[in-house]
Amino acid sequence: MNTLVSPVSADAVIPARGAIGDVAAVVERLAREGRAAQRELARMTSEARASALRFAAEALRDAAPIILEANAQDVADGVAAGLSSAMVDRLKLDSARIEAIAATVAQVASLDDPVGQVMDETHRPNGMTLRRVRVPIGLIGIIYESRPNVTADAAALCVRSGNAALLRGGSEAVRSNSAIHSALVAGLVAGGVPAAAVQLMPTQDRAAVGAMLAAAGLIDMIVPRGGKSLVARVQADARVPVLAHLDGINHTFVDRAADPAMARDIALNAKMRRTGVCGAMETLLVDALFPDPQGLVAPLLDAGCELRGDARACAIDFRIAPADADDWDTEYLDAVLSVAVVDGLDGALSHIATHASGHTDAIVTDDSDAAARFLSEVDSAIVMHNASSQFADGGEFGLGAEIGIATGRLHARGPVALEGLTTYKWLVLGSGQVRP
Amino acid sequence: MNTLVSPVSADAVIPARGAIGDVAAVVERLAREGRAAQRELARMTSEARASALRFAAEALRDAAPIILEANAQDVADGVAAGLSSAMVDRLKLDSARIEAIAATVAQVASLDDPVGQVMDETHRPNGMTLRRVRVPIGLIGIIYESRPNVTADAAALCVRSGNAALLRGGSEAVRSNSAIHSALVAGLVAGGVPAAAVQLMPTQDRAAVGAMLAAAGLIDMIVPRGGKSLVARVQADARVPVLAHLDGINHTFVDRAADPAMARDIALNAKMRRTGVCGAMETLLVDALFPDPQGLVAPLLDAGCELRGDARACAIDFRIAPADADDWDTEYLDAVLSVAVVDGLDGALSHIATHASGHTDAIVTDDSDAAARFLSEVDSAIVMHNASSQFADGGEFGLGAEIGIATGRLHARGPVALEGLTTYKWLVLGSGQVRP
Repeated sequence: MNTLVSPVSADAVIPARGAIGDVAAVVERLAREGRAAQRELARMTSEARASALRFAAEALRDAAPIILEANAQDVADGVAAGLSSAMVDRLKLDSARIEAIAATVAQVASLDDPVGQVMDETHRPNGMTLRRVRVPIGLIGIIYESRPNVTADAAALCVRSGNAALLRGGSEAVRSNSAIHSALVAGLVAGGVPAAAVQLMPTQDRAAVGAMLAAAGLIDMIVPRGGKSLVARVQADARVPVLAHLDGINHTFVDRAADPAMARDIALNAKMRRTGVCGAMETLLVDALFPDPQGLVAPLLDAGCELRGDARACAIDFRIAPADADDWDTEYLDAVLSVAVVDGLDGALSHIATHASGHTDAIVTDDSDAAARFLSEVDSAIVMHNASSQFADGGEFGLGAEIGIATGRLHARGPVALEGLTTYKWLVLGSGQVRP
Repeated sequence: MNTLVSPVSADAVIPARGAIGDVAAVVERLAREGRAAQRELARMTSEARASALRFAAEALRDAAPIILEANAQDVADGVAAGLSSAMVDRLKLDSARIEAIAATVAQVASLDDPVGQVMDETHRPNGMTLRRVRVPIGLIGIIYESRPNVTADAAALCVRSGNAALLRGGSEAVRSNSAIHSALVAGLVAGGVPAAAVQLMPTQDRAAVGAMLAAAGLIDMIVPRGGKSLVARVQADARVPVLAHLDGINHTFVDRAADPAMARDIALNAKMRRTGVCGAMETLLVDALFPDPQGLVAPLLDAGCELRGDARACAIDFRIAPADADDWDTEYLDAVLSVAVVDGLDGALSHIATHASGHTDAIVTDDSDAAARFLSEVDSAIVMHNASSQFADGGEFGLGAEIGIATGRLHARGPVALEGLTTYKWLVLGSGQVRP
C-alpha cells in the first residue's frame, strides 16, 4: 500500500496544510517521483503494461467491498453537506458500477498500444534514415470532480500509453478515489509497474490545483474532467498545456435538400437521447427553404423539449418561445434547444462561425455539394454529414476509450484516446555521416 | 500598398504609443483581420496559394532596390547605435541575400501542401465513415529579431499551409522588414491572397509583444525566432501555445564500440562545422573504455576548440581545462566544448537525463544493442546513431524548410515545417445514423 493514498495519512505528509509553499513542494516532489516512474514504465514492454492493467482490473474487483464502504461514507457526508441529488448520483457507486470500472481498465489493457509505432520513415540522399516513432508524453495531470470512475479510467489510459498520472479528484469523493487508487496501484505494482506511476494528490487543499497548473516542466499536460467552471479555471490559470473543451455549443443545420424524415430523427436524437452530454445539439438551424419545419420541431416539442427561437422559428410552431441574444451562445445541457431559421448554407455557416464552440457541428442534406462545403468550411473539431452529434465520443469513434474531447487547435482535436497521449521523436540512423 | 506596413504611417494608426491598452486593441484588431483573412486563404486551392507565393517571390526580386535602401538605413542606424558586428552582419542584406530570400519563397511554393491530406479513415459497424483531414492551425504569431529574411520565410510557410501570419520583427530591422513585407504582400495580393493574411505589427512598442503573448483565442500559436532571452521571455509570458526551443545542449556519446575514425570525424563536425547553430554539440561524452580518447579530442583542440573536462577528461590531454559545474548545462554556441568521461552507456544515459535540453543527442557505436538502447531511452526531440548533430535541421531532414525546432512535448517536436503548421478535424460521413 502506498502510504500517500490514504486520506488518513494525508495530514502527516503535509505538515502545514494551506500554506501554498508547502503544497507546491508536495506537487513538485510527486511530479519528480512520477517522472522517474514514467521512465521505468516506458522501458517496460507494451505487453507488460497491459498485463499490469489486467492485474489492476482484478484488484479493483477484489477491493469492491472496501471501495463501496469508502463510497458510502463519501455519499453520507455529501448528503449531510447538502450536495445536489445529481451530484450524489454521480458520486454513488454500486457493485455494477465497480464492475464497469474494472471492465474499463481491462478493456484499456486490450487496446492497441501506440507507443513505438513508426509514423513515417524517409531515406536521405546521404544514406541516413529518418524515422518518427511515437513515445509517451510523460507525466499527465488529471484534475476532476465527483465521478470516482475517472480515477481508474484516466490512470488506465495513461499507463497503457506509457505515461505516468498525477490525479487530483474532488473533495466530495476523497475516500472513494483513495480506495479505487489503492486497489489500482496494488494491481499495477503486482504487474511490475512502479507505484509512483499513478499518484493521487494527498491533499484537498485547493492550492494543490494551482500548484499543478503552475508546474510547467514537471507536468507535461493537464486534462481537466468536470464541469465548466473547473475547465474554465484550468484553462485560465494553467502554465502547463491543457487538453480540454469548455463548451459544446453544437449546431445541426437542416438544409433545404435534407430528407425530412432523416432530419427529424437526427434532430430528435441529437438533442434528446441524452441532454447532458457534451455532444448534444444545442442549436438547430433550419434552412428557410426546408419544406417541413413543422415536422422537424414537433417531435422535439412533443418529447418535452423547450424550444427558443428567432422570429422566423417562432412562426413555425406556437409552442416555440422567443430566444434572447444569450441563447445562441448557451450550452443548455438540458431539454432546451435554440432554433434559428437561416437563409441557406451561407446563413448557417455565418451563424456557426459566430456562435459555435468548435466541438461538433452537423449538416443534414442530400445535396453533396452543400455537404462538401459545410465539411470544408466549418472549422470545428468534428463536422458531420447526416449523423447525430451524439456520436461525438471516443468509444463511438472506435478509439476504445477517451481521456477527453479537445477543442483546442494544437496537438489533438475531438475525442482523444491513446494516440493523443503520445508524442513522437525523430530517430536519425546513420553510418558516420557528417554535414558538409 | 498596405498602409499598415509602412513605419512612416505606424504612428498614425496608433494614437497613443506606449499606452498598453491601445497596443492591445491594435493587436486584437490585427488578429481579427488576420483570422478573417485566414478563412479566405483556407478556401483558396492549394495551387492558388502556391501561385501567389511565386508572385511574391517575383515581387521581392523586383523590390530589391527598395529593400536594399531600407536595409542600408537600418544598418546605418544600427552602427550609429552601437550594434555589435555580429548583429550588423545578421541585419545586413545584399543582392545575393535578397535573391536567396526570394528563392526560399519560391521553393516553399513548391513544397507539398499538407492541407486536405487524409490522415486516416475508418468505417464504423453502423455504416459511418470517419476521416481525419489536415487543416491549417489559423493565425500564427512570429516574434523575431534582427534577421529580416524571417519576414519572408515564416510568412511563406504560413501561407503555403493556409495559415495567416502576424509578424513582429525587431526594431533594428524595422525598415528592412517593412520593405520586405510590402513587396511580399503586393505579390500575394496579386495572386488573390487577402492582404491581411500576412500582417506586420505597425509598432515597435514592446507592449505589443506582451499583447501578442496574451492573445489566447485570437492568435493560435506563437513561434519565437531569435536569441535565448527572446525565447525565454516568450515561453515565460505566453498564454498562447508556443512552438520553440530554448537550448540546444546537445550530447554526442562515443561508446566503447565506436569506430575511432568515425567518432573523430563526427565529433569534429558536430562541434566545429558551425558553432553557432542550435544543433551544434555542446558536450562530448566519452566511454571510459573507448580505446582512443586522445585521437578523439586532439583534432578538436587542433582546430582551435577550447575543451573543458571533468577529472578523467583532463587526463586525456593536458590542453583540456577543468570544467566547473555550470559547464554541463551551458549552450556555448561557440568553439567551446565540455567533455566528460563516463562509465559506459549507463553513465552516458544518466548524464544526458540530467543535463540534456531535449534537442538532439547522438551515440557513436558499432554495437547495435547499445544504439537501440540509446535511441529508445534518450528522450530528446532528435536522437541519432552514427551521425553528426549538425544535421538537426528541417532542410537536412527533407522537410524543405523549417519554421523552427521544437523541444516541447506536444503537437510537434524537432524540426517543424508545413505539417507542424497544421492541425486536423474529424469528418463523420453518415447516412442518417442516430445513436442508440
